[in-house]
Amino acid sequence: MAVYTEVPDDELARFIDEYDVGSLTSCKGIAEGVENSNFLVHTDTGAFILTLYEKRVDPKDLPFFIGLMLHLAQKGFTCPTPVEDRAGNTLKQLAGRPAALITFLEGMWIRRPTGRHCSALGAALARMHLASQDFSMTRPNALSWPSWRPLLEQCGARSNDVVLGLYDELGSELGDIERNWPEGLPAGIVHADLFPDNVFFLGDRLSGVIDFYFACTDAYAYDIAICLNAWCFEIDGSFNVTKARALLSAYQGERALEDAEYHALPLLARGSAMRFLLTRLYDWLNTPEGALVRPKDPVEYLNKLRFHRTAESVRDYGIDAA
Amino acid sequence: MAVYTEVPDDELARFIDEYDVGSLTSCKGIAEGVENSNFLVHTDTGAFILTLYEKRVDPKDLPFFIGLMLHLAQKGFTCPTPVEDRAGNTLKQLAGRPAALITFLEGMWIRRPTGRHCSALGAALARMHLASQDFSMTRPNALSWPSWRPLLEQCGARSNDVVLGLYDELGSELGDIERNWPEGLPAGIVHADLFPDNVFFLGDRLSGVIDFYFACTDAYAYDIAICLNAWCFEIDGSFNVTKARALLSAYQGERALEDAEYHALPLLARGSAMRFLLTRLYDWLNTPEGALVRPKDPVEYLNKLRFHRTAESVRDYGIDAA
Repeated sequence: MAVYTEVPDDELARFIDEYDVGSLTSCKGIAEGVENSNFLVHTDTGAFILTLYEKRVDPKDLPFFIGLMLHLAQKGFTCPTPVEDRAGNTLKQLAGRPAALITFLEGMWIRRPTGRHCSALGAALARMHLASQDFSMTRPNALSWPSWRPLLEQCGARSNDVVLGLYDELGSELGDIERNWPEGLPAGIVHADLFPDNVFFLGDRLSGVIDFYFACTDAYAYDIAICLNAWCFEIDGSFNVTKARALLSAYQGERALEDAEYHALPLLARGSAMRFLLTRLYDWLNTPEGALVRPKDPVEYLNKLRFHRTAESVRDYGIDAA
Repeated sequence: MAVYTEVPDDELARFIDEYDVGSLTSCKGIAEGVENSNFLVHTDTGAFILTLYEKRVDPKDLPFFIGLMLHLAQKGFTCPTPVEDRAGNTLKQLAGRPAALITFLEGMWIRRPTGRHCSALGAALARMHLASQDFSMTRPNALSWPSWRPLLEQCGARSNDVVLGLYDELGSELGDIERNWPEGLPAGIVHADLFPDNVFFLGDRLSGVIDFYFACTDAYAYDIAICLNAWCFEIDGSFNVTKARALLSAYQGERALEDAEYHALPLLARGSAMRFLLTRLYDWLNTPEGALVRPKDPVEYLNKLRFHRTAESVRDYGIDAA
């Protein structure tokens, strides 16, 4: 839950007046997102999200994020869309922070995705990859594999307080990943954080994708690998091949995977499990007790990593290479 | 900010289906209220607040709170109104908690109230007192003056860590209050927590009153005294007589004050300052560092208490007794 910045009411009213969205009728801080302050704003014409970008977001990245959402929306991909004020600006200032008013996306995120949800997700992911192909901006993935060893070293031997022997296990695993990381895969804009809480549904219909604040330039198949980890494991830790097949088949219905992408999937899945394991481990070891945002359990991703290590080929993910 | 209970999406969908409010399209936890979990729910027919009552609220009190809101709304007093489900129930269960779906009240609370806002508040307060006169339920004020000395004793000598000599100052002050507390004033339902964040405005027009979870049976003039403390002091600690006059005059435009109420006001203002000072002091001394809800500064109310101690009569509040 997160509202880090209080907005004075007169400043807010002036801010909303700069847009052609009607009169402000309500503004509630919402308990969603850990990086930014978010408010659900009602005006007499509709609902909007007001986002204030907090210190964890680099202001230099904001034109990329805002531009990407605008681009995707223009391509017909449903996502929150930054609203232009009367002067044509989307990225503004409020209460001393960079701020944007963004259309409100109706929908609910699914706590327990089924195969159908995974299928809808796979198709949407491919459509997002295609819709962003002619987006002109790029942003390096600051959390790609070269960043992982420094992250492990920062956690250091304290990792072993979380799971006995973890530091050595991850060091050896990282060696494998670094030696075998695939180069030259089809790449472009990836979401890079497409967990269930970032995908909205109305009934069984996917109504849109939110939270593009990790989006960057990387291999498309890496984005798929992140989704396999985030959507296809059961609460008991088992991998649900049916869900993976649904996700991958639906993806390919929109964008065909190349052979190299197929063969890279098991290693990319290990890599993406490593990425979330390491950031969670770091947060786990560095979050003061009683902090506003509770850190997520890193062990969940250790189990996922161990599963992928046993996978021999993409067949273990429910599909055959073409 | 407060969302203490997570609601599983399937349970939520079933819950909303029991009402005649259309289909659920969105549900966001909101960072408002410290006692309960609140969600802003959109359906295809409108907006609602879903409240889950947490442990700090006694379930036995809920029929009173819900009944009061329904009664006030029926009398034309604008406040959130509990919605009946198809079976006629307003108080239900969700995620293991008592829960109610309540109409959404548009409006914004005013961070820096002006005389005009105080005037609108005074009139609304009187209308609330009048509209609840034929409400049949009662609820004793658990935070009235007999509870204050035990609260001070619980804070004990640690009070002096907050302000040097505070424990003795409050003990002596409490003696005065206990000896002089007025009996037999006109009484009925009071809001008992009518701070600016519980009163919504659309422009200069008061659009409604929220948060009846401290409402109880007490002297009407005590409710006025709470408002004088919450609305009529400036940030620098000075008392704004113009605002007090606006509040009191507007109140009397709707309900005439009796002589005894006039004369009791300075002492009731001291008492209400004592009540908020003591609960804040208690929370200040008993909130673990880094807790989700930051305690409010008790010293603000010590300054208010000291002001009221210097008041000689109601003339110091900007009006003359009739």
